[in-house]
Amino acid sequence: MDVKNFQFLKMQNKKHFHIFSKEIKDKDIIHYDVCILGGGPAGLTAGIYSSRYGLHTALITKDIGGMALLAEKIENYPGFVGSGIELMQKFSEQAISVGTEFLNSEVANLDKDRTGFVIELINGKVVHSKALIIALGTEKKKLEVEGEEKFLGRGISYCASCDAYFFKNKNVAVIGGSDSACKAALLLAGIAKKVYIIYRGNELRCEKIENNRIIQAKNIEIICNSVPIKVKGKEKVESLIVKEKNKKQEIKLDGVFIEIGAIPVTAIVKKLGLKIDKDGYIKVNEEMKTNAKGVFAAGDAVKSKLKQVVVAASQGALAAKSAYEYIS
Amino acid sequence: MDVKNFQFLKMQNKKHFHIFSKEIKDKDIIHYDVCILGGGPAGLTAGIYSSRYGLHTALITKDIGGMALLAEKIENYPGFVGSGIELMQKFSEQAISVGTEFLNSEVANLDKDRTGFVIELINGKVVHSKALIIALGTEKKKLEVEGEEKFLGRGISYCASCDAYFFKNKNVAVIGGSDSACKAALLLAGIAKKVYIIYRGNELRCEKIENNRIIQAKNIEIICNSVPIKVKGKEKVESLIVKEKNKKQEIKLDGVFIEIGAIPVTAIVKKLGLKIDKDGYIKVNEEMKTNAKGVFAAGDAVKSKLKQVVVAASQGALAAKSAYEYIS
Repeated sequence: MDVKNFQFLKMQNKKHFHIFSKEIKDKDIIHYDVCILGGGPAGLTAGIYSSRYGLHTALITKDIGGMALLAEKIENYPGFVGSGIELMQKFSEQAISVGTEFLNSEVANLDKDRTGFVIELINGKVVHSKALIIALGTEKKKLEVEGEEKFLGRGISYCASCDAYFFKNKNVAVIGGSDSACKAALLLAGIAKKVYIIYRGNELRCEKIENNRIIQAKNIEIICNSVPIKVKGKEKVESLIVKEKNKKQEIKLDGVFIEIGAIPVTAIVKKLGLKIDKDGYIKVNEEMKTNAKGVFAAGDAVKSKLKQVVVAASQGALAAKSAYEYIS
Repeated sequence: MDVKNFQFLKMQNKKHFHIFSKEIKDKDIIHYDVCILGGGPAGLTAGIYSSRYGLHTALITKDIGGMALLAEKIENYPGFVGSGIELMQKFSEQAISVGTEFLNSEVANLDKDRTGFVIELINGKVVHSKALIIALGTEKKKLEVEGEEKFLGRGISYCASCDAYFFKNKNVAVIGGSDSACKAALLLAGIAKKVYIIYRGNELRCEKIENNRIIQAKNIEIICNSVPIKVKGKEKVESLIVKEKNKKQEIKLDGVFIEIGAIPVTAIVKKLGLKIDKDGYIKVNEEMKTNAKGVFAAGDAVKSKLKQVVVAASQGALAAKSAYEYIS
C-alpha cells in the first residue's frame, strides 16, 4: 500500500496527557454523543459500531492504528492477511465511511459536567460527549538498565517493525520471551546477520508455529535464564552485558530490541475515578462498562487473556453497544 | 466471488445430531488434539488459532460459514466489506492454510473416554480429541409463511444489526414482540423511514424503557394481535399481508425483519453434561470454559450482548487459547 496516501498514519510511541486547566467558552464546544479516546483496533471498531448505531461519534487520537501498526505481518486476524498498517487503514476507512469524525489531537484536559464529559484537546478545541469510550492501549515497558536511555534511537529500539531495516546484516538482540518478542526475533532474523533472544525464563512463550520457525532459523540463538544488565558503547550500541546466575557475558552487537511487555495508558483514568487493577488495567464488566457512569473501555488497556486485534475489535464493538444503550 | 469455486459452502439451516450407538473399532480412530464442532465465525477462528498453537485440529461441520452466510453484505466486520459468503471463505482459507483439517460431516454420537472425547461422524468415521470446542451457533426461528424463503437476502432478514443499514429511508416491518424484536425496531427506527412492529400478542414484551422509546418514536407503528401470512414481491420484498382476526391488510414495504427468536444448537450438550442457562445457551466463563473438563464453547451458542461476527471470532480465539493451555 502507499503509505503516503494514508496521511493519518503517524507512529508515536508515547501518548501524553497534559492535564491543565483553561476556561472553557461554551460557544466553542462541539457536541458529540460518543467520544472515543484512542485509534487502535478497539477504538476504530468502537467508531464503526457507534456511528452505525446512529450516534454522532468522534475519535480522538494522535496516531491511527495503535500497536497494530508495529506488526509487519498479521496472519491471525480472521479474514485478513497483510501488514498491520494495511489492516488499520481498512479499519479507519470503514469508520470514516459510516461517519466517525477523526479529531487528530490528544486530550489536554478532561472533566465531567451535568450531561457528560468536557474534553479539551491540545489543539485548543473543546468537545463535549454524552459517553466516553477509553481505548488508549498500552505503552512499551522499559528495561531500566544502564545505557537504555542513552542509546535510544542509536541501537536501542522498542519496535522491530519500525527499525529492523536499520540492522541489515548486523547483530542484534531481542529482550523478552513473549509472543511479541518472538515475532520481533523472526522479523529481525530475515534482515539481520544474527539475532540473540535473551529471556529470563527457560522457555519461550510464543505460539507453536513461531517456536518452530525460531528453531529452524539458522541465525537465531536463544539465551534463556538470563537478564541484560548493561548496554555498552561510545556513540551507539556496541555490546550488551548479560547475566546468567553468577555468570556474566558480553555480547558484541549493534542493536537491542526491548520486548518485555507493555503498561496500560491510564493517566487519564485517575481524573474519571475509574477503578484499575493491580497491573494498571481498567476494570470493566463483560459489557465493557467501567465503574463510572457513561464511561466504557476496550482494547489493551483492559485486561484480557489474549492481546490480539480480533479480541480488541470485539471489545470495541461491545463498548459501542453499551454506549448506545446508555445514551438511548 | 465465484461461489462455485468454493465447494465447502453449502447453506443448511438445520444441524442434526442423531444420537445413536455403534461399536467403535479403535484402529479406525483418527486422533486430534482439538475438535471444533461448527464452522461459523467462532469455529473457523478457533481453527486458525488452534492450528497456529501447533495443535492437530479438526473442524467438523456440514456447512462452512454458519449464520454469517445469511448476511447479504457485511459492513461492520472491521477490515472487511463484502458478502458473508466472501468473508467466511477468507476465514476458512486462512484456517486451511495453517493446517486445520475440515471434516465435512456431522456428529452422530459423542462420548467421553479416559483421555478425551470420541466423536462418531455420520459418514462412519470416528475421531478422538483431547479437547472440544463447541461452536454450533443458533438456529433462527422461521416464520414459515409464503415468500419467506424466496426473499431471504432480498428483503427478508433475521438480523437487524447486520442489515438495518441497507434500509435507510425505506419502510420495514419487524415481526415479533420480544425484547430483541423491540431492540431491532428501535435500531431500524433510527435508519429506516417507517417501521411496523407486527406482533401476535397484545402487548410488547420488552423493557419499559424500550417500550417508552417505541411509543415516542414517530416512525414506529405497532400492529398487535396480528400475524403475517404472506410476503409478496417480484425480485424483492414489496409488501406483507397481515391478518388480524378475520381482517386482512396489505402493507407496502421493502424489508421484513423476522425476530421471533433463535435456539442455541445444544442437543449434543446433554450428553456432555454442560450447564446451560434458562434460554438454552451454554454457560462459559470469560475464558470460554464450560463446566466440563476439556470442553470450551464460543459463538452464538453462548449468551452474548452482541451477536456479531467480530464477537464470535474473538470468542473462538479465546476458546482456542484455553484449549491450548488445557492440553499443554
